[in-house]
Amino acid sequence: MANTIDFYFDFTSPYGYLAAMRIDELAARYGRSVKWHPILLGVVFKSTGVLPLLNIPIKGEYAKHDLERTARFNSIPYKLPSIFPIATQAAARAMLWIAEKHGDAKAVEFAKAAYRAFFVDDINISGPAEVVKIAAGLDINPAELTEALGTQEIKDRLKAEIDQSIALKVFGSPYVIVDGEPFWGFDHFNQIEALLKDGAI
Amino acid sequence: MANTIDFYFDFTSPYGYLAAMRIDELAARYGRSVKWHPILLGVVFKSTGVLPLLNIPIKGEYAKHDLERTARFNSIPYKLPSIFPIATQAAARAMLWIAEKHGDAKAVEFAKAAYRAFFVDDINISGPAEVVKIAAGLDINPAELTEALGTQEIKDRLKAEIDQSIALKVFGSPYVIVDGEPFWGFDHFNQIEALLKDGAI
Repeated sequence: MANTIDFYFDFTSPYGYLAAMRIDELAARYGRSVKWHPILLGVVFKSTGVLPLLNIPIKGEYAKHDLERTARFNSIPYKLPSIFPIATQAAARAMLWIAEKHGDAKAVEFAKAAYRAFFVDDINISGPAEVVKIAAGLDINPAELTEALGTQEIKDRLKAEIDQSIALKVFGSPYVIVDGEPFWGFDHFNQIEALLKDGAI
Repeated sequence: MANTIDFYFDFTSPYGYLAAMRIDELAARYGRSVKWHPILLGVVFKSTGVLPLLNIPIKGEYAKHDLERTARFNSIPYKLPSIFPIATQAAARAMLWIAEKHGDAKAVEFAKAAYRAFFVDDINISGPAEVVKIAAGLDINPAELTEALGTQEIKDRLKAEIDQSIALKVFGSPYVIVDGEPFWGFDHFNQIEALLKDGAI
């Protein structure tokens, strides 16, 4: 069976959002499945000393423009949220809990809904309440999820996930690993497709 | 007549090299010409506080890998030079002088030869001697160019070129401006092509 594709992303990453809207269909075209890994870029950036893109003078302005253009170029609805960037622990922990409790498919459904809420509907998804509300729309029990988000267990679970991504040298979002080959950035999807198609790049 | 495309690059920038090997043919396919602007990233980086890509831990390692892959993906010969990065004042000044003295076409020919010397043949092009030698291969008088490289006039000319690029918010290499629309990075050539083709993006 063909290897699963690993997809690392932060819920506050706009290029991560664009990648999230396309990665499953890209993988499916070549008979692959995708394992989604929510991470926290703030933690990852400490290991590289890199600044969040949109906070860099001049380059940040360009990135804002490029995001709108790249979204349009790929026919993906997108709007820079009015509060940005945001903390994404709640969304990341919720996704991990949903994956364990309800399976990966439901977790991915949640991730896409959370991403759309943030980058299409301008809903601030940093707090647990909003995250639970989005999950409730997917038939996930609000009381159970609320309780889970407060446990040490789920905090440790996300920390372990991030530690593992850092060990794999993931340093940004989106970051995709296909058959051991790493790709950083939504603009590398053409190279990912070439690898999936030809088995080598 | 269709607008000229502005192409900003540093001779020590590997992605700039990849772009340089493709930009003229891309523009020509849509009846456009390209104005080449050599800049010094070291000066530009001061205005953004950005570190040279390959010097960033982890991200730099990835970039080395990505450069080899991207060159292969685009069938462009490429090898990370054994001495890297290098100072590129001499090459940039030479290009500007050649453009004034022998015209833009000859200057672009020189730029491509210098880029190939550095990224294909692993020749350190930081010193005036090597730059003059490359130019001599294109029938440019070595004594005249050597003299020109030492003048205050050509230093001021490069400084003015860089100041102008900073005023236009150029912050990296390659950086391309088409009809007022800015594109950073070789991986945006597909979007540049879409703009050239459709007149909008």
